[in-house]
Amino acid sequence: MADKTWGRLDPEDLPKFVEEAIPAIKRTGIKVLEMRSGYASLRMPLAGNENHIGTMYAGVLLTLAEVPGGALFLSTFDATKYVPIVKAVEVRFKRPATTDVTITAELTPEEGERIHQELGSRGKSEFVLECELKDVKGEVVALSRADYQIRKSD
Amino acid sequence: MADKTWGRLDPEDLPKFVEEAIPAIKRTGIKVLEMRSGYASLRMPLAGNENHIGTMYAGVLLTLAEVPGGALFLSTFDATKYVPIVKAVEVRFKRPATTDVTITAELTPEEGERIHQELGSRGKSEFVLECELKDVKGEVVALSRADYQIRKSD
Repeated sequence: MADKTWGRLDPEDLPKFVEEAIPAIKRTGIKVLEMRSGYASLRMPLAGNENHIGTMYAGVLLTLAEVPGGALFLSTFDATKYVPIVKAVEVRFKRPATTDVTITAELTPEEGERIHQELGSRGKSEFVLECELKDVKGEVVALSRADYQIRKSD
Repeated sequence: MADKTWGRLDPEDLPKFVEEAIPAIKRTGIKVLEMRSGYASLRMPLAGNENHIGTMYAGVLLTLAEVPGGALFLSTFDATKYVPIVKAVEVRFKRPATTDVTITAELTPEEGERIHQELGSRGKSEFVLECELKDVKGEVVALSRADYQIRKSD
């Protein structure tokens, strides 16, 4: 559990880490659109991720719902001291996705401050991301909720 | 939305269809252990599906939670007349998965009969699968709940 590689990355290398460090994520072709403190947006391509009827496969949308927590963690918290853990993911599918799909996750400054304070005082903290997954026309194809914990690394 | 290929498959070809028809599923290397009416069990290999710390990546476990609904549909209902739709998936992660992971989904005869009757009378029906995802020692690594609808194909 002690690969701290990501804790030593320069900020400009973080998107590539998110896109490529985990082979199962890399295989989807997911792209980071923007990562900064408290903010991450990502795009999942339809190409290569179709189901048997040509829309985006649900399992890929589940992955797209999971990734923002790790991306936000890396762009917001000290990855040399802490690790993120996903505790739960829920996705409700609203309509078939017939194009690339984007997700944007954000922590308010107050939420970021709460987490920083809890990490300092308790060594761990939890947060929830509720996001919309949207097609290129801005239509919501799915709604997600993901629960994460951040805690001191061993 | 009209690829009815799967509706014309022989029963013995269904496992290969589940494993290979959707490229994003095929890339995971998932294997069908058993498919029969009302029953499906599948195994996700750890190899190729590790995260950056060597345990199974959460997104792959999410996919493993989604697949049984389609497999059960194919082994239980008439795929020339009906299609399955996944409405929601929820996974709660319990411990890191350090081995291959299996999932088994089952419909009771009563539940299968209810669905058959509703398909006949209303042209659609819904069912829920609540499953345990287990490592090779039988330890539960995650709990899943997935909601599906079956309805007449267009």
